[in-house]
Amino acid sequence: MPVFGYRIYNSTKSETGDEMMSMEHLLSDGIKLTPPSFVRSILKAASDPGVISFAGGLPNPISFPQEDLLVSMERIVKNYGSSVFQYSITAGLPELRQYIADRYNRKFGLHLTIDNIIITTGSQQALDLIAKVLLDKDDGIIVEKPTYLAAIQAFSLNQPVFYPVELTEDGLNLEQLEEALQHHVKFIYTIPEFQNPTGLTYSAENRNRIYEILKNRDIVLIEDDPYGELRFDGEHLPYIGAGRLPDSILLGSFSKTVTPGMRTGFIISENTELLRYISIAKEASDLHTNIFSQYLLWDYLTNNDLDTHIAKIKALYQKQAQAMTNAMDAYFPDTVKYTTPHGGMFLWVTLPEGVSAMKLFPKALERKVAFVPGDPFYIDIENANTMRLNYTNADCETIDEGIRRLGGLLKQL
Amino acid sequence: MPVFGYRIYNSTKSETGDEMMSMEHLLSDGIKLTPPSFVRSILKAASDPGVISFAGGLPNPISFPQEDLLVSMERIVKNYGSSVFQYSITAGLPELRQYIADRYNRKFGLHLTIDNIIITTGSQQALDLIAKVLLDKDDGIIVEKPTYLAAIQAFSLNQPVFYPVELTEDGLNLEQLEEALQHHVKFIYTIPEFQNPTGLTYSAENRNRIYEILKNRDIVLIEDDPYGELRFDGEHLPYIGAGRLPDSILLGSFSKTVTPGMRTGFIISENTELLRYISIAKEASDLHTNIFSQYLLWDYLTNNDLDTHIAKIKALYQKQAQAMTNAMDAYFPDTVKYTTPHGGMFLWVTLPEGVSAMKLFPKALERKVAFVPGDPFYIDIENANTMRLNYTNADCETIDEGIRRLGGLLKQL
Repeated sequence: MPVFGYRIYNSTKSETGDEMMSMEHLLSDGIKLTPPSFVRSILKAASDPGVISFAGGLPNPISFPQEDLLVSMERIVKNYGSSVFQYSITAGLPELRQYIADRYNRKFGLHLTIDNIIITTGSQQALDLIAKVLLDKDDGIIVEKPTYLAAIQAFSLNQPVFYPVELTEDGLNLEQLEEALQHHVKFIYTIPEFQNPTGLTYSAENRNRIYEILKNRDIVLIEDDPYGELRFDGEHLPYIGAGRLPDSILLGSFSKTVTPGMRTGFIISENTELLRYISIAKEASDLHTNIFSQYLLWDYLTNNDLDTHIAKIKALYQKQAQAMTNAMDAYFPDTVKYTTPHGGMFLWVTLPEGVSAMKLFPKALERKVAFVPGDPFYIDIENANTMRLNYTNADCETIDEGIRRLGGLLKQL
Repeated sequence: MPVFGYRIYNSTKSETGDEMMSMEHLLSDGIKLTPPSFVRSILKAASDPGVISFAGGLPNPISFPQEDLLVSMERIVKNYGSSVFQYSITAGLPELRQYIADRYNRKFGLHLTIDNIIITTGSQQALDLIAKVLLDKDDGIIVEKPTYLAAIQAFSLNQPVFYPVELTEDGLNLEQLEEALQHHVKFIYTIPEFQNPTGLTYSAENRNRIYEILKNRDIVLIEDDPYGELRFDGEHLPYIGAGRLPDSILLGSFSKTVTPGMRTGFIISENTELLRYISIAKEASDLHTNIFSQYLLWDYLTNNDLDTHIAKIKALYQKQAQAMTNAMDAYFPDTVKYTTPHGGMFLWVTLPEGVSAMKLFPKALERKVAFVPGDPFYIDIENANTMRLNYTNADCETIDEGIRRLGGLLKQL
């Protein structure tokens, strides 16, 4: 099956429905091609009181250890004084990078030092920096189909050619991957664990086969892993590239385990040459990540047991995911399929062929329930018959009621 | 006098002295052209104990109201709970944007609402976002000569053609400005108040004449104003564009008045269409700026008097600037000229024609005193006879001793 390359054309115009404006001639081509977050408009519609929204992607507030963080705030101001408020180094607080290295070495069998780690302003910045360092206009990149919509945004600014490779229950479609690799491609962007938007996880075999395909090729593999710590079912699977593909990049984040509001993520790579360039790009982008938050996270992490904290989050998310799939079992017609997540925050619903989730959306809103239609997660599909649902931000009764409402609508199809 | 356009070529190679490495073929053209911060290597050399360093650009810790910030931390966690740790909106905390609007309206005669303001991850991010939104490869931009080196970095990623316009005691060289405007130019980047690196301030007349030159042209004016609140001598001068050129952008920051470590700056513009694109670029870059820090700043600013706090900073900086110019009067030979700052953090030294500050640097280090040679602040000059000195981070006795050491060296020229 041939894999086609796609450029994004005039997203701004088509997605907002606005006419291009008086200042169009001043705008860069990159920004004209960058889709505004469609999800933001959906979230706005979904924020009406009375609407049960599965559209967001917010971690449950249970994941913010507020009291412990407050204790850490007092301690770092007392212990480190002006250092927590002053300018700092671009790569990030060495102590925090050491904590991350130690944790990944201990839990995931890597062999990292602080030189393998750069702190970023959330994982989102990592995507921006990687694009800056690797992408010229018209360079090819391979992405999952569907993929994380804010990655599409970050990459689009650099006007690449997207080669979407289908995501299956097992992981990447390997034939399509090999086909896509025939093109001029700089990197592959993957989310192998509890993928956003689908909630799918690549199997160990699929990972191994991807590794075999990539190991002799000159291409950067990005493994984006914001949810890896949130596995509530089964065992941690080995990384595709981290620890064995020297040019691979592993992305991590504290957004799902401690706080997203403080925008603290990290880039891990064995390729310190690549990291040096990423660091130059970061310096040009924001000098360094908020140093107060880096001290705070480091102090919190060294004075508390992160695994005990994460266990609480996982227990809740497992219950919520179960509540959602149970409700789908009960209320959805058989023609509608959905993924069973083993971790993370999302699941993915596939409607019968030809049914547009986008067109269903306003009808769902009338029934006071919201989701994200699949479209913004694809480069090359409109009126997709898929939708993303988040289960982490509603209690189990609300989840049941929301899925009941949605099921009522789906039964009318 | 003709103004020439300059592209940056292979900065990475020339500035670091490294050979291009094995992965060069994977790198983007933009990153290859982005100079690594030369200042970082200088700062490292200057950090030896015993060296008196005027090389940095750090605010004095007196500007961090640590105790008051700690009180605010406790209050926002108590009052706003999980909101200070959760994901937030891209444009920034509405309450903080309202505070900024009110302050600029009251103090500087603008007419802003929150829709005219986007919070950025430090002013540095504003430069990155503006470049993303406005610059295609080979677009022209006008910059001061010399200019802020991290702006050169941020813009270089987008491979523009730089048109440097000389900065004089009064402001921009207007003939050169008109000449540069004959070219295809997207924006002009200026720091009219206590410029970095020179410490110079554009006169009211120079500002007016720039306004007259620009008012009927289709070009974006950027006024970067991180130091404007730190005037310790004379009266606030009217902005060039803010309040009267609809396509102009004013940049501000809390880095010099409250804390740089929390990376909180802001973009002000009357052009809400432009801001909408900047917001899309920001979403793709880091989703939003650290929301905890935004709540913190807002709470601090509404519960304390910022002007009283700034008065303390200004009193100190005025004493330090005075100590530095007094010492230069006493120890420098007459052939060496320097600017007299009326605010901000830097002053600028001009050596006799033909003397390279870069070549002087190792000799200064031998005498245990450090500065930043002028080179990295220029697009088109090497071995400049200029240097930047920072006076905010040493006490007056140390300043006197450092300038005495430097004067001893300069007298040998």
